[in-house]
Amino acid sequence: MTTGSGLFVSFEGGEGAGKSTQIRLLADSLRRRGFDVLVTREPGGSPGAEAVRHVLLSGAAELFGTRMEAILFSAARSDHVEEVIRPALASGAVVLCDRFMDSSRVYQGVTGNLEPDFIEPLERVAVNGVLPDCTIIFDLPAAVGLERARRRGARDAEGPDRFEKEEIETHEKRREAFLDIAASDPARCRVVDASQPETAVAGEVLLLVEPFLKRLAATSNGSTEAAQ
Amino acid sequence: MTTGSGLFVSFEGGEGAGKSTQIRLLADSLRRRGFDVLVTREPGGSPGAEAVRHVLLSGAAELFGTRMEAILFSAARSDHVEEVIRPALASGAVVLCDRFMDSSRVYQGVTGNLEPDFIEPLERVAVNGVLPDCTIIFDLPAAVGLERARRRGARDAEGPDRFEKEEIETHEKRREAFLDIAASDPARCRVVDASQPETAVAGEVLLLVEPFLKRLAATSNGSTEAAQ
Repeated sequence: MTTGSGLFVSFEGGEGAGKSTQIRLLADSLRRRGFDVLVTREPGGSPGAEAVRHVLLSGAAELFGTRMEAILFSAARSDHVEEVIRPALASGAVVLCDRFMDSSRVYQGVTGNLEPDFIEPLERVAVNGVLPDCTIIFDLPAAVGLERARRRGARDAEGPDRFEKEEIETHEKRREAFLDIAASDPARCRVVDASQPETAVAGEVLLLVEPFLKRLAATSNGSTEAAQ
Repeated sequence: MTTGSGLFVSFEGGEGAGKSTQIRLLADSLRRRGFDVLVTREPGGSPGAEAVRHVLLSGAAELFGTRMEAILFSAARSDHVEEVIRPALASGAVVLCDRFMDSSRVYQGVTGNLEPDFIEPLERVAVNGVLPDCTIIFDLPAAVGLERARRRGARDAEGPDRFEKEEIETHEKRREAFLDIAASDPARCRVVDASQPETAVAGEVLLLVEPFLKRLAATSNGSTEAAQ
């Protein structure tokens, strides 16, 4: 484990890939097995970060330029890490986080055209040593993901946020960027075919997380019940 | 010059050192000599940065923790640099900025107890290559500066901001930190005894800035009138 005695799992991928549904299913399953599970998300996840999230997703931040936007994402991440994730890991919890640093690499770095020399120091400062032990990347053709996000938008009162309004080529570029991250960090990253039926994806996610859970149980000071 | 053909002068020091008065006097003097002068300040200086300034000085940011606060200062600085300072320097202007990166080093780094590994990458990201050519540090015993700031606070409708409410030992620590910066970067930094009468300080500031103005005139593509 990177930090403390808990397990930090992040979930990444484009819009409409089913991340939040799958996180909920995984959390339910782990809680039934006795794990202490914290579900959180970015941008946001702590009071300070949620305040910044509101600004970032409203479109007001577009006035600020890409660099300021990227730094604001880091400010939110820093608060989220220090106030929520680090304490949860220290207490031995399984933290399931919807989007983390890889989203910044992809959205601000690759499709936001910010150079690695800008993105990398910001990432280091924001995560401050708290890196995911495991990252599940939900892979889906951009057209499928966007169509799903659109249908969800039609249901939601809020409608699609500004990131979901962007073009399909950009989404395809992000998909490739997430796959590049997975290829470059195979110890941490696992890719799931998110075009499968929901239950199939849920089963695959559980299988992928299992080895990390075993390590958590092995290093845990608490009861071994959770590993059964 | 670090960037473009202009001249970037930052002004640093504790509260009540008379920075804003001196900046106004210097700006008037330079404008009379034909220089194109931009006066700006941090935190703030651009619409995006002023929005963040409001949050930072209101005390609301105290809820966020020191790290998030430091990153928000960087977000404001990045916007200020890209939207205001860099374009002004590129057009050949003299930019006079009330506080810049040294304030972050001192307020967040030294008295905020944030480690250099955290502060330095943030500074690099925010300034993005735009460093002051010259930094005038207004040096004043903390007790004198605080007393001046208090008198000003009694006049202002707003009253003292939260930084001015802090203790005298902290202010003395900051004074030493500013002097350390001056000692470590003598090519850029000049220290002024701010306890002198206003006109004496103004004369000294002008003398200190003069060599940098000569270099600006020498490298300028425009009329040489400004150097007369």
